[in-house]
Amino acid sequence: MNNKLLTVGTLAFDTIETPLSRVERTMGGAANYSALASAIFDVEQAVVSVIGEDYPQSFLDYLIEREIDISQIEKVQGGRSFFWSGRYFTNMNKRETLETQENVLSGYTPKINPAFSDASFVLLGNLHPKVQLQVLEQLSSRPSLVVSDTMNYWIDHTPELLEELIRKTDVLTVSDEEAFALTGETLLLRAVEKLQQKGASYIIIKRGEHGAMLFHEEKRFFTPALPLTQVYDPTGAGDTFAGGFIGYMAQTGEVSFENMKNALVYATTLASFCVEQMGVERLLSLTKEEVLRRLFCLKELTQFEIKVV
Amino acid sequence: MNNKLLTVGTLAFDTIETPLSRVERTMGGAANYSALASAIFDVEQAVVSVIGEDYPQSFLDYLIEREIDISQIEKVQGGRSFFWSGRYFTNMNKRETLETQENVLSGYTPKINPAFSDASFVLLGNLHPKVQLQVLEQLSSRPSLVVSDTMNYWIDHTPELLEELIRKTDVLTVSDEEAFALTGETLLLRAVEKLQQKGASYIIIKRGEHGAMLFHEEKRFFTPALPLTQVYDPTGAGDTFAGGFIGYMAQTGEVSFENMKNALVYATTLASFCVEQMGVERLLSLTKEEVLRRLFCLKELTQFEIKVV
Repeated sequence: MNNKLLTVGTLAFDTIETPLSRVERTMGGAANYSALASAIFDVEQAVVSVIGEDYPQSFLDYLIEREIDISQIEKVQGGRSFFWSGRYFTNMNKRETLETQENVLSGYTPKINPAFSDASFVLLGNLHPKVQLQVLEQLSSRPSLVVSDTMNYWIDHTPELLEELIRKTDVLTVSDEEAFALTGETLLLRAVEKLQQKGASYIIIKRGEHGAMLFHEEKRFFTPALPLTQVYDPTGAGDTFAGGFIGYMAQTGEVSFENMKNALVYATTLASFCVEQMGVERLLSLTKEEVLRRLFCLKELTQFEIKVV
Repeated sequence: MNNKLLTVGTLAFDTIETPLSRVERTMGGAANYSALASAIFDVEQAVVSVIGEDYPQSFLDYLIEREIDISQIEKVQGGRSFFWSGRYFTNMNKRETLETQENVLSGYTPKINPAFSDASFVLLGNLHPKVQLQVLEQLSSRPSLVVSDTMNYWIDHTPELLEELIRKTDVLTVSDEEAFALTGETLLLRAVEKLQQKGASYIIIKRGEHGAMLFHEEKRFFTPALPLTQVYDPTGAGDTFAGGFIGYMAQTGEVSFENMKNALVYATTLASFCVEQMGVERLLSLTKEEVLRRLFCLKELTQFEIKVV
């Protein structure tokens, strides 16, 4: 086992409107959020993605500064980068997508650099499941941990590919709604059971402001989200969560339910920072010390001694 | 301080429709759920409420069997008991009220028995805030702990009385939506701050399947709901929660944030049983041993050791 981490996902321009602010063509995409979160940990990370000629070097520099390998980020000459724009409603729990331009993502085939084809940790961020599978096919050995994310669009449009992906996944991260859509169940525990039967040994249910729950065999662990005085922009919180989770796992190396509890706690903490500023802004200024301080707030919030009466 | 507990609230007939079952004119009302939950603990409890001539002795017997004092349950000759009927939607998180008959509740003035006017613990279940205040006015001394519940109807229709109630309340239990409605805020921490300013030193935010959070000064504690394989009927879960909370507090006697953490954990555990069968059915068969067993599941679900990396 090594501490190499392959982070697969979109690199994008995001235009985000929240009730409090608006930002145009900012640095976005699942891979950016996840990579910045994983970079808090001591890991050897490479991002696998595709960009157009319009993608600014300054965005890439943020990764390079964090010693993230960008050699597997393909730049398409004459191509335009993936673009997403969305608007959040008043309570920020709901958003609508205003526009998606696939651009260079359409027809993209990932190419894994031999230096990373033996990565022990692979994060397959939300993308066409075909691309996620193509990454796995190019690995020289089975990774110690494959974490996969997806979204409703792929559940509706490419169900067979998703089934194959889940079979090859160790940790599937989905929302309640996605778990229900994937299984046809309406009760969480039943949906989780079915997802485990589909092949993912660990299931993480992401509930946004309502926290996250980890399932493995008969075991369960829950962590709430940290209550925040200000939520500026929820974009990327799930990707930050996933990046934090696998980053912690890659640094510590021990693939077990017990260790994943801590990974979940770190992931939740990192996600809580993400939403405090627009786009990736807060992640760019985030220090390890801040993360640890907030980790202890999460401990305070949840830990108790049972008094049997 | 004594371990006397006054439980104020409705005693009712409930007709409940869920996607899984239907029950007619079953034993219901906030005071019944709360009292049955509190009765798990070693407390001297009396229920303060009103019933009509149609209210069956068998319902009262369930309280009597648990050594709950029913001398302050007023029976109105020729009157009809409070009636509520409601229907739950598929995912059971939402319901609609089909019918409410106030009946004997309309014009009810509670009369507190001198034997209980020195009660150290008072639970003011959801009722007209005028009635809740009338109970407090008849007490011979300030209780050690007043826990108050309410609902959107009173927030909309009797805001001044509610303000007065909150000033006299130690622990206010409300849902997110109720907290927002009471304060005009849309962010939880701000709503909680305003509720504290209104006079309730402790705030509990009830989130149903998403758990509950306790706030006091700068301190916070969260407990998730237990994940269940079957939810049969959510009716009364909030009242069971409140009854479990104050029952634990009354038995242990120590009014502090630290002790309330445990009260919250017991309350959550009791509420998880309530929803497993229709109406109060599960509470009627519940044993202390079952509660303790599930309490340890909740501990398993939430406790971790921070690993600083």
